[in-house]
Amino acid sequence: MNTYILLFQCRDQKGIIAKLADFIFKAGANIITADQYSTNPQGGYFFIRLEFVINSASIAKVALEKGLRLLAANLGAQFSLYDKHKPLRMGVCVSRPGHCLAEILYLWSEGELNVKIPFVVSNFKGHREFVKQHKIPFYFVPATKNNRRENALLKIIAENTDFLVLSRYMLVLSKKFLNAYGKDIINIHHGFLPSFKGSNPYKQALSSGVKVIGATSHFVTEKLDSGPIITQAVEYVSHKDGLEELVRKGRNLEKRALTDALRAYIDYRVIKHADKTIVF
Amino acid sequence: MNTYILLFQCRDQKGIIAKLADFIFKAGANIITADQYSTNPQGGYFFIRLEFVINSASIAKVALEKGLRLLAANLGAQFSLYDKHKPLRMGVCVSRPGHCLAEILYLWSEGELNVKIPFVVSNFKGHREFVKQHKIPFYFVPATKNNRRENALLKIIAENTDFLVLSRYMLVLSKKFLNAYGKDIINIHHGFLPSFKGSNPYKQALSSGVKVIGATSHFVTEKLDSGPIITQAVEYVSHKDGLEELVRKGRNLEKRALTDALRAYIDYRVIKHADKTIVF
Amino acid sequence: MNTYILLFQCRDQKGIIAKLADFIFKAGANIITADQYSTNPQGGYFFIRLEFVINSASIAKVALEKGLRLLAANLGAQFSLYDKHKPLRMGVCVSRPGHCLAEILYLWSEGELNVKIPFVVSNFKGHREFVKQHKIPFYFVPATKNNRRENALLKIIAENTDFLVLSRYMLVLSKKFLNAYGKDIINIHHGFLPSFKGSNPYKQALSSGVKVIGATSHFVTEKLDSGPIITQAVEYVSHKDGLEELVRKGRNLEKRALTDALRAYIDYRVIKHADKTIVF
Amino acid sequence: MNTYILLFQCRDQKGIIAKLADFIFKAGANIITADQYSTNPQGGYFFIRLEFVINSASIAKVALEKGLRLLAANLGAQFSLYDKHKPLRMGVCVSRPGHCLAEILYLWSEGELNVKIPFVVSNFKGHREFVKQHKIPFYFVPATKNNRRENALLKIIAENTDFLVLSRYMLVLSKKFLNAYGKDIINIHHGFLPSFKGSNPYKQALSSGVKVIGATSHFVTEKLDSGPIITQAVEYVSHKDGLEELVRKGRNLEKRALTDALRAYIDYRVIKHADKTIVF
Repeated sequence: MNTYILLFQCRDQKGIIAKLADFIFKAGANIITADQYSTNPQGGYFFIRLEFVINSASIAKVALEKGLRLLAANLGAQFSLYDKHKPLRMGVCVSRPGHCLAEILYLWSEGELNVKIPFVVSNFKGHREFVKQHKIPFYFVPATKNNRRENALLKIIAENTDFLVLSRYMLVLSKKFLNAYGKDIINIHHGFLPSFKGSNPYKQALSSGVKVIGATSHFVTEKLDSGPIITQAVEYVSHKDGLEELVRKGRNLEKRALTDALRAYIDYRVIKHADKTIVF
Repeated sequence: MNTYILLFQCRDQKGIIAKLADFIFKAGANIITADQYSTNPQGGYFFIRLEFVINSASIAKVALEKGLRLLAANLGAQFSLYDKHKPLRMGVCVSRPGHCLAEILYLWSEGELNVKIPFVVSNFKGHREFVKQHKIPFYFVPATKNNRRENALLKIIAENTDFLVLSRYMLVLSKKFLNAYGKDIINIHHGFLPSFKGSNPYKQALSSGVKVIGATSHFVTEKLDSGPIITQAVEYVSHKDGLEELVRKGRNLEKRALTDALRAYIDYRVIKHADKTIVF
Repeated sequence: MNTYILLFQCRDQKGIIAKLADFIFKAGANIITADQYSTNPQGGYFFIRLEFVINSASIAKVALEKGLRLLAANLGAQFSLYDKHKPLRMGVCVSRPGHCLAEILYLWSEGELNVKIPFVVSNFKGHREFVKQHKIPFYFVPATKNNRRENALLKIIAENTDFLVLSRYMLVLSKKFLNAYGKDIINIHHGFLPSFKGSNPYKQALSSGVKVIGATSHFVTEKLDSGPIITQAVEYVSHKDGLEELVRKGRNLEKRALTDALRAYIDYRVIKHADKTIVF
Repeated sequence: MNTYILLFQCRDQKGIIAKLADFIFKAGANIITADQYSTNPQGGYFFIRLEFVINSASIAKVALEKGLRLLAANLGAQFSLYDKHKPLRMGVCVSRPGHCLAEILYLWSEGELNVKIPFVVSNFKGHREFVKQHKIPFYFVPATKNNRRENALLKIIAENTDFLVLSRYMLVLSKKFLNAYGKDIINIHHGFLPSFKGSNPYKQALSSGVKVIGATSHFVTEKLDSGPIITQAVEYVSHKDGLEELVRKGRNLEKRALTDALRAYIDYRVIKHADKTIVF
């Protein structure tokens, strides 16, 4: 048996579900999960995520895709079809703070993050040993604010990744880099966006006297810390929490927000739409 | 335009969604929300909630129901079809603690709880004035532990309610009463079930030294405080919180758990299954 | 027996607690609660809140204050001494949205907010009936953006209040008004400050695609929505939550953040310091 | 400069703080943190935690202790005096589930858990490599339900630990073992106590249909999963969360509840009293 995930979106109109479900039924598949969302009951945009199982002998993925293309053309829709059990290749980029890296590699080694990790690349040498213990290639690229070495980075990541995670990578990536890479990049920002963009968000939080802090995982776009938000995690703090304590509590939030976002992403539950995300 | 909500459940099998969606499409309706759940991808039980709009001229509710009956028979399914904008009639039963009553009547008066409230019945006279200010009939039934006056209660509630809410009603209802009434009864228990059943749950929580307290809204069954849970709300506490403070924090939890449960229920998002609930 | 609350603050130095505790002990009082905070273990600022009980016959409040003045002069400190059981007079200002008003009056009527409420003033007539039911004077002041009628407002509140709560009052108060009133004003902002200042914070939240919303209670200063934060309350949201749902969830957050702030304030647990608050 | 932490408790009475603070002041120390709690304002039990810094030349710890003994005798009090920067020796016991172990070792390696870890002992060989990478001795003791090998365990832990953490150790320790060890043992239970004691708490949670799950860190006593609770962590779940998902979410809760408890314990902020804890 194969399990496929279909993401399908178009302008809302009558009969979308009927046509899709009919197509899948006639292909001999059984829908096991359906998630649907419309931006607006009257004339909005329609999104659906369908997970279905099918006897691998009965129909090939290319045949499914061909049928879906016809249907999509008919409805003015876009779609993607994924093989659930074929893991994505996730590149990892990290600077000195290693807590998100450690969490990711632990979950991955326990089978809780269904990805391939072709490499970890860092501008901090100190992670080499830890990464090697996981039998993952490690690349040291001595990027700095003044010399971001994006070409070197690009050479490592371009070919063998489906997406990239910035697991506390402290350098801003240029528009040129984003365009050249062309695939999704997921970042963890150690602040509660849209508050506290840029550097030292915990310092900003401390000086503004907030009683709740947060971390935000989002897609990277050209505009710093402003891409579509995937997940946020928050925790109450008090006047007793100094900078060190905010940073410590924040690390837990970052680990949680980032790994929740990654799990949703690799499970094909995240759809970008209008600078925001739908997370089924 | 009419908006209908369909709850539909059966053993999982191929083609359920296709058949349902096709039926609705052919009836001229547009599905605006679809929520689906299966207890088990392999051979479990299948549930779907569909919200669809339809031109009131094109098809009557009875015609829809007739078609759905055929389909259901074919799939071995059960279903209910509701008119979204026809409010349910919610009877309210309350003892002395008035905070949940106040919350319910406030939300109702602001249009946030789409129900009719045919009456409030209480074994505490002191609520009369407050209820009357909302132009809702108030019945005083002096029920006590030793004389629960269930017949008097039943006479009031039987005919003109679709369901009953026990908004901190401190007497246990008998099996006989439950059978005679025969409709859903939603209770708020001021403890984190399954811990702390029965009376004085906050005292139980205090003496067991828990660091989190909770409130639970659930369907009433014969077994005390053990019916299917609809919602739970929790909050962190510390050694500083004495009984009075637990009770105070608990009131907020009760208000929240109960009104969340009511909103879900009257929106037809709650399905009872196997001593548990599905809350879409 | 009388219960007093002492707030005492000065530059950190050796012996502060010893001197204070010795003074209170010699006055014949028993300290029942001590809360202390220093901004910095090395050379910071020191704050303490002491609650103590004393036989009313043994020493008068003026005598206590006299002794404390000597001690404070000696340590370069500021202090305030409050009679715990003498309720503060809280003026209430409200525009159309009535949920915070309803929560405050309910808690007050149940004895959960130990204040006197000399009046409710509003630029929305519709609250009159509700306020009258609580036997609280109601003043209608038809203030608008273009004519804020601050003199009329000031006349009502100046004399008979100890502090003012803006329970969703939708007009900005001028610097001149703040100076003329000269006492604390507590506001509830329906957004997670410092994000989403100004009007329509839920619309701002929606369009920025956040996954958590919040409400903030803070002291009013000249700078809009920027005074010291007392409490914040937050809740997770998803793409499914449209504007109406954000507003609905937000109301619960506002009620909670505001009443938590009020309870802390009237219990003398809030200290303003350096644009932030200490909340014991 | 030395930093000391004093935990001091006795029946409530006038002048405790004055006498303590005076003693510390005269010793030449500066109190930098004071936390106090009384079980009851009238005639309860009094607890205080004081952190103070003192020039190491001015007075030795033994001299401080001698003075405190006099004071304590005078007040009928018990006390402990700790050197803040002298780390406790924490023995670690773990069975197969390694997530808490991984979290503890990561935090420890980053300097976030100020303890010495003299060893990790396990009845699961598979942790050897991981522990060795941290340069911590690893002992394999093949304990099972039928042969708990408590003598072997005791030989390892008795001498060189100040306390023991059961970081998901799946065997019950006997009364005899507890008595022989005689020091504090901190456990993490993967359920929301007092609900769901014993084995398979997530299965119990699933079958009872709760909408919130939790984890509990507590002191070990003879009675299974019933010792004084130090911390609890909770998270909302829905009908969609099957057993695997509950277990996954639960791991995060366990990591958080346990490491929060450990941080509080090694910072001397935890006091056991009457089957409960005070956590400053």
